[in-house]
Amino acid sequence: MTIRVTIWNENVHETTEPEIAEIYPDGIHGAIGEGIRGMLGDAIDVRFATLDAPDNGLPEEVLETTDVLIWWSHIAQERVPDDLVERIHDRVLRGMGIIALHSATKSKIFRRLMGTSCCVRWRHGHDRELVWTIKPDHPIAAGVPEVFAIPQQEMFGEFFDVPDPDELVFLSTFSGGEVLRSGLCYRRGYGRVFFFSPGDQSYPVYFNEHVRRVIANAVEWAAPRSGVRPTPYLSRNSPEGWLDAELEGTRA
Amino acid sequence: MTIRVTIWNENVHETTEPEIAEIYPDGIHGAIGEGIRGMLGDAIDVRFATLDAPDNGLPEEVLETTDVLIWWSHIAQERVPDDLVERIHDRVLRGMGIIALHSATKSKIFRRLMGTSCCVRWRHGHDRELVWTIKPDHPIAAGVPEVFAIPQQEMFGEFFDVPDPDELVFLSTFSGGEVLRSGLCYRRGYGRVFFFSPGDQSYPVYFNEHVRRVIANAVEWAAPRSGVRPTPYLSRNSPEGWLDAELEGTRA
Amino acid sequence: MTIRVTIWNENVHETTEPEIAEIYPDGIHGAIGEGIRGMLGDAIDVRFATLDAPDNGLPEEVLETTDVLIWWSHIAQERVPDDLVERIHDRVLRGMGIIALHSATKSKIFRRLMGTSCCVRWRHGHDRELVWTIKPDHPIAAGVPEVFAIPQQEMFGEFFDVPDPDELVFLSTFSGGEVLRSGLCYRRGYGRVFFFSPGDQSYPVYFNEHVRRVIANAVEWAAPRSGVRPTPYLSRNSPEGWLDAELEGTRA
Amino acid sequence: MTIRVTIWNENVHETTEPEIAEIYPDGIHGAIGEGIRGMLGDAIDVRFATLDAPDNGLPEEVLETTDVLIWWSHIAQERVPDDLVERIHDRVLRGMGIIALHSATKSKIFRRLMGTSCCVRWRHGHDRELVWTIKPDHPIAAGVPEVFAIPQQEMFGEFFDVPDPDELVFLSTFSGGEVLRSGLCYRRGYGRVFFFSPGDQSYPVYFNEHVRRVIANAVEWAAPRSGVRPTPYLSRNSPEGWLDAELEGTRA
Repeated sequence: MTIRVTIWNENVHETTEPEIAEIYPDGIHGAIGEGIRGMLGDAIDVRFATLDAPDNGLPEEVLETTDVLIWWSHIAQERVPDDLVERIHDRVLRGMGIIALHSATKSKIFRRLMGTSCCVRWRHGHDRELVWTIKPDHPIAAGVPEVFAIPQQEMFGEFFDVPDPDELVFLSTFSGGEVLRSGLCYRRGYGRVFFFSPGDQSYPVYFNEHVRRVIANAVEWAAPRSGVRPTPYLSRNSPEGWLDAELEGTRA
Repeated sequence: MTIRVTIWNENVHETTEPEIAEIYPDGIHGAIGEGIRGMLGDAIDVRFATLDAPDNGLPEEVLETTDVLIWWSHIAQERVPDDLVERIHDRVLRGMGIIALHSATKSKIFRRLMGTSCCVRWRHGHDRELVWTIKPDHPIAAGVPEVFAIPQQEMFGEFFDVPDPDELVFLSTFSGGEVLRSGLCYRRGYGRVFFFSPGDQSYPVYFNEHVRRVIANAVEWAAPRSGVRPTPYLSRNSPEGWLDAELEGTRA
Repeated sequence: MTIRVTIWNENVHETTEPEIAEIYPDGIHGAIGEGIRGMLGDAIDVRFATLDAPDNGLPEEVLETTDVLIWWSHIAQERVPDDLVERIHDRVLRGMGIIALHSATKSKIFRRLMGTSCCVRWRHGHDRELVWTIKPDHPIAAGVPEVFAIPQQEMFGEFFDVPDPDELVFLSTFSGGEVLRSGLCYRRGYGRVFFFSPGDQSYPVYFNEHVRRVIANAVEWAAPRSGVRPTPYLSRNSPEGWLDAELEGTRA
Repeated sequence: MTIRVTIWNENVHETTEPEIAEIYPDGIHGAIGEGIRGMLGDAIDVRFATLDAPDNGLPEEVLETTDVLIWWSHIAQERVPDDLVERIHDRVLRGMGIIALHSATKSKIFRRLMGTSCCVRWRHGHDRELVWTIKPDHPIAAGVPEVFAIPQQEMFGEFFDVPDPDELVFLSTFSGGEVLRSGLCYRRGYGRVFFFSPGDQSYPVYFNEHVRRVIANAVEWAAPRSGVRPTPYLSRNSPEGWLDAELEGTRA
């Protein structure tokens, strides 16, 4: 079944800074979309959404037909409306996958899902990043080398204030000696969350084939196995006698 | 060093329902306070705070001198102001311990820390709850039997929509056959979070010596090892050359 | 790609106790094989192996062409040769999946993979077991109800001396009030390990459709994504200059 | 209560290679002992044990009076008798703490506890190691800086074939760009296991005050809370009626 992917990008750097537009002429979302389309082909259906589109690109009809949401944001984090964040959060708990990239650490939706500050150490200084696979059997690491280099990158380093991940797939080191847990899996409600650190507007990171491979794998990993539920899980009363009623037909 | 404990209770059932007041004449907070004082003595300093007190019992000077906050809430969850929730959340990330009890599953602060709905299955039907220790070496299980019974309890059962805990210490079973992950440890920022399910206003659960032992142990476990930090962890720039500066004096 | 499954069964109860043979006329392995074949069809290729077969049913050519090994053992645990255990262990570390069922808790291979005693509380007393799904989005839980009943079962209860699982998928409760972490996922080396508790020779548990569904799902989950590696991961020297050599071709 | 620490060292390099003896004139065990004694004083009682001592330094009366065992081994891993490994393993499962250092990755006892190969990437090439604290609230990180440098070290890097740790406390980066999960906590049975990577015979790592602080903290963390149990946890029958018997006196 086709996975319906929506790539959301604030799209501010690319539209206001010519030197960024040169790196990402089709926007960061465009580069990511091209990458995963090339790898997943007909297995996915890709749409784009940006901050300045009507309803910030995510009206009800788009969000409610999205299986996996890819999210990139940086300088416009606070311009994302709170009620949109709540709608996304609700859909993740119902089963939608979400992939938060790079500076989306500080996005409202990622912090909402984590419950922590998600702060990191950083340096905008042309570091070389090495991405190491430490869970070689993980589906998100399929086809990814044991280590690959991103020649120029912003440094994101520990302490990274997030909850312990359910699965730690990648670690990154930087030329300054720093380290980051850079590929993290979480489950929240019925949904899956993947954070992947590589990617900055100033460098052509989203054209790197390994970065694209990781994002493509993450799309497949995060896709809901049996669709997104129409309603959230709610506390529910199981009055006396419920057990027998519920078990009807489940005995062998 | 004395652990400064504040026990927060919405204190609504006890003040509006005579049959609850009979069970908890000093409030649920009073019963908990008596219990942990009896066990920890001078190791703790206990204060009480309730919803209807000025500043909901947690003005700046109280919260900022609290090492471990115990939280009980149920029918007045939504009356807790959002800005108080943010202040508590901020202090947890800076190192304050927090212990969420029973229906505090649905408190704003617990959901804020978890990032999920925290919904559960439930039944108010005089169930017998058995609490099983499944991490016998854990400090919160010290002195707690392998299994103990609470003769009458509200049932809380799976699916319980929380993130996977860092440590799963207790499991509970109920006479209806249900099961709950009932003792859960989390780290968020520099702070520690413990959820413990037993305890309902309709039953004298907080007079149970084993329940009291668990809460007392949790106070010691959740207490910040080196005090609560005055400021939160913030993303910070580590410009070129930072490494050498930071390492000054750490080489051997 | 077809998953090559080998179902290993000590096959002692069925061949020496008529009342067990009546329950499992084709052996426990036969009942499991029938179940997963009915569910996975051509996606799997099933072979059977038993203790009294030549090379205990697992000569080199069988083990080395097995993607997922299902293991059932009970009273003959100690008759499994140590060198076979080492061969299985080696193949798991190279990527073969393994599913340990019920009393295989105490098998040499499961204990070898866990590093603990794997002891449990037990009672052979016609208990009713309820299996609760606590990770509803997990692939092993796909198509499994929130709760299902096994009318008659041996009780296995906590404390269950295993390492904390990477993923806790099922919890079971018993009519005596006991509880067990009954569906556990682990990664060891490049391989995946799933333990599932339901199943005793005295009861027709392996004819239960939900139990069969769980085992079928586990086969798919445990199958190696990119085949079993021909050689184990070994410590390896990365001499000066290695980094550049290894990265050759991974830069973008 | 005094923690009884035994520091076991194969003590081969120091007694056969003059240049190592110069770095560690009192043996690696001596350097570690001096370090933790200076930090923990009367809180610990330290004994030393070496491979060439009678009973390899760990006769019954020593092992059975040890609360925390520190283990260093490298070129003589295979000379440790299997039955000693089983005795240590048994005692860990009964509650003794164990701290495995550096090349003890490949010791029989560590592999026995992990169930994996524990292989790593390595290079003996005078790397600079940076140790990063990624769990700042963890007791083993108390008083340890966010990052500290070890100017000369052997490189140990990922992939490190161990089970996912219960707690990941430190990450190390090396001048070659490699990374290692270098401070890992596990529970096995009633006992606690800590692995800490820094430390090689060729460099004076165990004189580094931060390394010593980590080991001292780990001793306190790994010490059994209520003594080591005299007998292991064993599977045990809970016949009909057990529940009531067991619960006698636990109801409130």
